[in-house]
Amino acid sequence: MKQLNIGLIGTGFMGRTHANAYRQVNTFFPHAIEPVCKVVCGRSVTTTRDFGARWGWQETTTDWRSLIARPDIDVVDICTPNDSHAEIAIAALEAGKMVMCEKPLAMNGGEAQRMVDAAARSGRPTMVSFNYRRVPAVALAKQLVDEGRLGRIFHYRARYLQDWTINPNLPQGGNTLWRLDADTAGSGVTGDLLAHAIDLALWLAGPMREVTAMTETFIRERHLQDDPATLKPVRIDDACAFLARFANGALGTFESTRYACGRKNHNTFEINGEKASIAFDLEDAHQLQFYQHSDDSLVRGFRTIGVWDGDHPYMKNWWVPGCAIGYEHTFIHQVADFLDGLEAGEKRVPDFADGLATQLVCDAVLESARTRMWQQAT
Amino acid sequence: MKQLNIGLIGTGFMGRTHANAYRQVNTFFPHAIEPVCKVVCGRSVTTTRDFGARWGWQETTTDWRSLIARPDIDVVDICTPNDSHAEIAIAALEAGKMVMCEKPLAMNGGEAQRMVDAAARSGRPTMVSFNYRRVPAVALAKQLVDEGRLGRIFHYRARYLQDWTINPNLPQGGNTLWRLDADTAGSGVTGDLLAHAIDLALWLAGPMREVTAMTETFIRERHLQDDPATLKPVRIDDACAFLARFANGALGTFESTRYACGRKNHNTFEINGEKASIAFDLEDAHQLQFYQHSDDSLVRGFRTIGVWDGDHPYMKNWWVPGCAIGYEHTFIHQVADFLDGLEAGEKRVPDFADGLATQLVCDAVLESARTRMWQQAT
Amino acid sequence: MKQLNIGLIGTGFMGRTHANAYRQVNTFFPHAIEPVCKVVCGRSVTTTRDFGARWGWQETTTDWRSLIARPDIDVVDICTPNDSHAEIAIAALEAGKMVMCEKPLAMNGGEAQRMVDAAARSGRPTMVSFNYRRVPAVALAKQLVDEGRLGRIFHYRARYLQDWTINPNLPQGGNTLWRLDADTAGSGVTGDLLAHAIDLALWLAGPMREVTAMTETFIRERHLQDDPATLKPVRIDDACAFLARFANGALGTFESTRYACGRKNHNTFEINGEKASIAFDLEDAHQLQFYQHSDDSLVRGFRTIGVWDGDHPYMKNWWVPGCAIGYEHTFIHQVADFLDGLEAGEKRVPDFADGLATQLVCDAVLESARTRMWQQAT
Amino acid sequence: MKQLNIGLIGTGFMGRTHANAYRQVNTFFPHAIEPVCKVVCGRSVTTTRDFGARWGWQETTTDWRSLIARPDIDVVDICTPNDSHAEIAIAALEAGKMVMCEKPLAMNGGEAQRMVDAAARSGRPTMVSFNYRRVPAVALAKQLVDEGRLGRIFHYRARYLQDWTINPNLPQGGNTLWRLDADTAGSGVTGDLLAHAIDLALWLAGPMREVTAMTETFIRERHLQDDPATLKPVRIDDACAFLARFANGALGTFESTRYACGRKNHNTFEINGEKASIAFDLEDAHQLQFYQHSDDSLVRGFRTIGVWDGDHPYMKNWWVPGCAIGYEHTFIHQVADFLDGLEAGEKRVPDFADGLATQLVCDAVLESARTRMWQQAT
Repeated sequence: MKQLNIGLIGTGFMGRTHANAYRQVNTFFPHAIEPVCKVVCGRSVTTTRDFGARWGWQETTTDWRSLIARPDIDVVDICTPNDSHAEIAIAALEAGKMVMCEKPLAMNGGEAQRMVDAAARSGRPTMVSFNYRRVPAVALAKQLVDEGRLGRIFHYRARYLQDWTINPNLPQGGNTLWRLDADTAGSGVTGDLLAHAIDLALWLAGPMREVTAMTETFIRERHLQDDPATLKPVRIDDACAFLARFANGALGTFESTRYACGRKNHNTFEINGEKASIAFDLEDAHQLQFYQHSDDSLVRGFRTIGVWDGDHPYMKNWWVPGCAIGYEHTFIHQVADFLDGLEAGEKRVPDFADGLATQLVCDAVLESARTRMWQQAT
Repeated sequence: MKQLNIGLIGTGFMGRTHANAYRQVNTFFPHAIEPVCKVVCGRSVTTTRDFGARWGWQETTTDWRSLIARPDIDVVDICTPNDSHAEIAIAALEAGKMVMCEKPLAMNGGEAQRMVDAAARSGRPTMVSFNYRRVPAVALAKQLVDEGRLGRIFHYRARYLQDWTINPNLPQGGNTLWRLDADTAGSGVTGDLLAHAIDLALWLAGPMREVTAMTETFIRERHLQDDPATLKPVRIDDACAFLARFANGALGTFESTRYACGRKNHNTFEINGEKASIAFDLEDAHQLQFYQHSDDSLVRGFRTIGVWDGDHPYMKNWWVPGCAIGYEHTFIHQVADFLDGLEAGEKRVPDFADGLATQLVCDAVLESARTRMWQQAT
Repeated sequence: MKQLNIGLIGTGFMGRTHANAYRQVNTFFPHAIEPVCKVVCGRSVTTTRDFGARWGWQETTTDWRSLIARPDIDVVDICTPNDSHAEIAIAALEAGKMVMCEKPLAMNGGEAQRMVDAAARSGRPTMVSFNYRRVPAVALAKQLVDEGRLGRIFHYRARYLQDWTINPNLPQGGNTLWRLDADTAGSGVTGDLLAHAIDLALWLAGPMREVTAMTETFIRERHLQDDPATLKPVRIDDACAFLARFANGALGTFESTRYACGRKNHNTFEINGEKASIAFDLEDAHQLQFYQHSDDSLVRGFRTIGVWDGDHPYMKNWWVPGCAIGYEHTFIHQVADFLDGLEAGEKRVPDFADGLATQLVCDAVLESARTRMWQQAT
Repeated sequence: MKQLNIGLIGTGFMGRTHANAYRQVNTFFPHAIEPVCKVVCGRSVTTTRDFGARWGWQETTTDWRSLIARPDIDVVDICTPNDSHAEIAIAALEAGKMVMCEKPLAMNGGEAQRMVDAAARSGRPTMVSFNYRRVPAVALAKQLVDEGRLGRIFHYRARYLQDWTINPNLPQGGNTLWRLDADTAGSGVTGDLLAHAIDLALWLAGPMREVTAMTETFIRERHLQDDPATLKPVRIDDACAFLARFANGALGTFESTRYACGRKNHNTFEINGEKASIAFDLEDAHQLQFYQHSDDSLVRGFRTIGVWDGDHPYMKNWWVPGCAIGYEHTFIHQVADFLDGLEAGEKRVPDFADGLATQLVCDAVLESARTRMWQQAT
C-alpha cells in the first residue's frame, strides 16, 4: 500500500474535521493509497501536542515552514485562519506539495489568483474544502441536474443563516473569534457562509455573470477577545444579500447572516427548472426535496427523498439503508474523492481554480455593496 | 328549481355546521334541487330563535315531534346529542322523511339496527354525517385505493388524538359537555372520535373481522356542569385503543384519546400497501402523503400532495389551484353529495347501514375492553 | 339593522371572493350594519346575470358608470383588471361612495396618488384588498411584532412563488389571462404577487428606504388568447427579485416568480429579531412558526403554532379549536374589519394610502430593474 | 493509560458498528481506559481476516471458545445471530469476562434469565446494545421525563416500521437473511424491531403490567438463501402490534412491521403527559418534538428542537452547534458510557437485567398473539 504523508497546519475546528477524515477514510472507502497522519502544526506547543495525541499524529511542530520543508510530506493541508492561506499554499506548492486548503481560498481574488498560478506552475493537485458538495443529498442534486432532470433552469435561491453573533457582548478577534476580525477573516459572512452557497451555485447552475449586493454590520462595536477592556469597531459584514444573473439566464438570490434568531446551520438552496425543482436544507441534510412536473397530476408533490439508500452518492460505503450519516462525513468523502483523483491520475474538484471562481464572486459582491452598482462576477 | 325543505334538530356545534352547508351548497355545487332552511328546532326558545335568525331559517320550534309531523318537511337533519338519534330518526323515517343524522349513528348496535330497519321499511334516503370522508385529501385517498394503486393492503393505522379534557377541573354533562356524560353520549372517545376513524377504515380498507381493545378513564370524578357542587364518577372512556384484523388480511391499529397534550385534531391514518403507502393528518388537511414503490429509486420518497388542484376531488368547485379550503367545507360536500344522490336516484354513502357497521365495531371494541377478549367486529 | 348597499364591479375570480364575503360576513361576525348585495356589474350580460343569480345579487348591469350614479349604492367594490381601478375609484369617490378596491391599487404611483387625493377630498372610507393581512396566522404575526416580542428586527425575507406560466403554450391577454398583458396588468409578478409581499412587509416591519431589483421575462413571446394565431412579445415581468433597506435598519430580500415548478401559492415571509423569529408560508396558512430565544436552551426550537385557538385573531368567530379555515375566509375578515371601522367611525387599514405606499415600492422596484441602480422606495 | 482488551465475536453489520465504536470512542470521549481491538472472531477465515484488517484488529480467529479462553481478553462483545447469544455470554461470564451483547439479549426469557444469573454469579459488568438510548434526542427525552417536565404520563405510543421484506422473492435464512429464519432469530420483527421500542418504553415510562398482541406472516413461503430451489414456510412474525398497560397507569400502543412501504427506519415514540408531550422519529434523529402546556397560549405549539447544542446529551464532545451526527455515533456513545461505568465503578444500563425485562415483554407479546389473551408482561 502506497503511503501518503499528510502535514496538517491548524488545530482548530477545521483541523479536527480534517484529522478525523484522514483517520477514517480508508476504513469506509478503501484505497490503494493510505494517508498517514505525519505532522500536525499549530501555534501553541501544548495545544498542538494534545491535538496530535488525540488524533494520532506522529509528530508535532509549531513551525509551518519546517513542515513544508520536509521531503517526506506529500500533502499540506491548510486549516489556518484565512489570512495565511495564500502564503502557506504558495510555499507548499513551490515545495512540490499537493495542497488541501480550507475555504474561503483566500482573502481576495488577487491572492486566490496567485495561488492558482502557483498551482499551475507546480502541476500538483489541489483541493478547496467546500465540504458541502459532499453531503450525499447535495451530490444527488448535482447528479439530477447533470442528468437533465430539471431542464432549463429559471431560478436558483440560496441562504445560509446562523444566529451565533446576535449577542452584543460576544467579543471579536482572538483565537476562537477571528471570524469577526476583518484583518484575519477578510470578510464576515461573505467569505464564511456565502462562499459555501456560491460554490454550490457555481457547481450546480454554472457561472454567474453579474451581481448586486448589500451588506450590513448590525453590532458596530465589540470588545476584543484578547483585550476585553478594549472596544473596537467591527469591520466585517454581519449580513450580506445579493441578486445574481447566471450565464445560463437563471436568476439567483443569495442571503447570509449570523443574526437569524433560531437558525443554526440553515444552509439551503432551491433550484427551479422547467421540468423539476430541487430543495435542500443542511439542517435536514439527510433529505432532498424533489418535485417532478411529469408525475401524474393527481399525485404530484414535493418528494422527501431520504438520501440513505445504496444507490445514493457515497452511501453504499456506510451502513444500511435508512441510517443517516453526519456532518463530519462530508470531510471523509472529500478525502476519499481526493484519493480517487490521485489513483485515477485525474483532477478532482473543487480545486484552486474553483476556489478562485468563488472568490471572484465574493469580491464582486463586496464591491457591489461598496459601490451600490451591479458588478461583473467573473 | 325543485325545493327541498329541511328541518334541522339541534342548534349546537354540529347544528351550525349543517346550517352553514345548506346555505352554501348550491352556490358552489349547483343542483336542480335547492335546500330550503325551513324549520330549526332546539331545546331553548331564545337560543333557537337566535340560531334561526343568524343562519336564515324561516321558522323555529322547540318541539321536534311537531317538526317531523309537518308535511312540508322533506329532510330531517338530526344534530342532537347521541341519546336521541334513534328515537328521532325512526320517527322521521316513519313519517316518510329523508334523514341526515350526526355520528355516531346511535348509542349502540341495537339502536342502530332499528334505525337501519326503519330506513329499509321507509325506503327513504339516509345519510350519517361522517364528514371526514369529504375532506378532499381523504376522498383522493379513496380514489387511489380504488384505482388499485396500493395493491394488497398490509397495514391500516389510525389515531384521533385531542387534549381538551386534560384539565381535571373541567366539569361533565350539561349543555356543552354532554360528551363526558355516558348516559347522553353512549361512550367517550370511542363514539366521538374513534367512530370517525373506524368509518374511514371501513370505507378505505373494507370490513374488520375482529378486535381486541382497552379503554381507560384517567380522571375518575368530575363536577357536574349543571350542579358544580356535585362530584360524580366519570363513566365514559377517556381513551381507547384497539387492534383489528380486516377481512382482507390487513392488520389495523387504532387509538383515540382526549389526553394527548398538544394534539388538537390529530385525526390521522396511514395505509401501507404492497405498491404504495398513503398518510393523512387532519391537522394538515390540505395535504396527502403518498409513496410509490415503482418510482425511480434514486428520487423515491413520500410526496406531499397539495390537494387543491382542479382534478382533485371537490376542488374544481372552489377557488383556484393552491387555495386551501377549511373544516366547514366537508359538510358542504356532504350536502352536495346527498343532493347528487337525490338527482341521480341513487344512494350516497355513508348511509344508515354504514353507520350501523361502524357502530358494531364500536360495540365490539367496548365489549372487548370489558371482557378482555377478542371480539367479532360485525 | 342599518343596510349597506354594495355595488360590485367585476365578476372574475376576485369578484367571486368578494361576493362570498358579503354574503357570509354577518353570520360569523355579527354587525349592526348589514351589507346588501345590491348590484353587480360585468362586461358580459350573460356572465353577469349568471354571477348575480349564483351569488344572490338583486340587480345586474354592464355599465359601471350607471352603477356609480345610483344614489342607493353605498360602497363600490372594484374587482376589475388593474387598468380600470383608478378611473372607477375616482369616479366612485367623487360620487360620494366608499370604495373597496382589489390590489394592486393602480397601474403606477401616479394613478395611486390621484386615487389617494380623491379619497382625501371625498373623506369616504377606502380599503385595498390585501387580503393576506387577514390570514389569522399573519394577523398573529403582526400582534407578536407589535407586542415587542421580536425586539429589534434584523431581517425580513419574503417570497411569493407560483408555477402556472411555465408552459410556453399558455397564451396571453384576453378575459382570463390579462395578468400576462402589461397594458392591462401594469406589470407581471411585481404587481400581482410582490405587491402582496410588500404590503405585508410594510405592515410588519415598517417603511422601506431603498431597493435594488432585477426582473426577467423567461418566455419572450406568447400567442394571444383572443387571437390564437398571433404571436406577440410578452412585456410583463415573469420574475422579480429585490433587496431592500428598511427605515428601521433591517435588511429585506424579496422574490417572486411564476416559474417555480411545484410552488403553487408559496407566499412566505420570515422575520428575524434580536429576541425571536417568525416564519409563515401561505401553503400552510393555518400555522405560524415561532422561535423565542428566551426559552430554556435545552428545549428551544421553532414552534409550529396551530393558529386555530379561540384566542387567535378572528378564530373565536369560527368553529372550535383545531378546525382550520380556508382561503376565502380572509375576504370575510376583510369585510368584517371594514364594517368594524364603519361602526367605530375609525379608518381600517390597508386603505388607499397604504395601497399607494406599496405602489411606490413596486414602481421603485421596476425602475431599479430598468436603471440597474438603487432607487428610493417612498 | 489502562488498556481494555476487546474480543469481538461476529463480523456482520453489528460487528462493524461495534468495531467502529472502539476505534473512535477515546478520540471524542477521552477516558483513562483505552479499549484495544485485540481479537475478532468470525465463521469464515477470509471474511474475518478482511474484517480484522479493515477495522484494525490485532488478531483473528474462527473459534469463539478459544477467544473466551484467552486470559488477556477483558471484554467479550457478542455480535452474532440471536441463537448463540446465551451460550457465548454465559461461557464468557464464567470465564470472568465483561460482556457486551447485541440485542435482543436472547431467544426467549428462559435463556435471558440464565444469562442474568450468570452475570450475577460472575459479578462482571454487562451491557445490552440497545443503542437507540444513545441517540442524543432520545437521551434528551429521558432527561425531560426524569426532570418531571411531563408530569403524569397518560400515553406512550411507539412504532418501528420498515419495508425491506415486501418483495416476495426475497429469500430467507443464510448468512445475511437469518433475521427471516425463526430458528436463528427467535422471532421476526418482535425481537428485531419491537425489542428496541420496548426497551425505550421501559426506560422512559417504566414497567408494563400486561399486553395483548397480534402477529402476522404476510408472505408465508420463501426460498432459502442457501438453497434457492427450496421453498420453505416462513415461521417468523412479519408484523406485530400490541396494546400495553404500564405500571404507572399509562396506556401503550406498539407496532412493528417490515411491510410499511416507504418507511425505512421509522422508529418513533410519542409520550403524552399532563404537562407536556414529546415525540421522536429515528428518520429525523437530530430532532425532538416538544410541546409544553404552560407556554403562553398565543404562541404554544410543538417545538422542533435541533438536538445539536452543547448542552444536549453527548453533543459537547462532537463538533459545533448545528452539526448533526449520525447512526454510528450511538454505538460510540454506548462504549463511552460503558467506559464511564468502569471508571466510576458503577453499573451502566441497559445491562443484562434490562435485556431480560425487554425479553419478558417480547415473550408475553408473542404468547398473547398465540393465545389471543392478555398476558402479564413481567
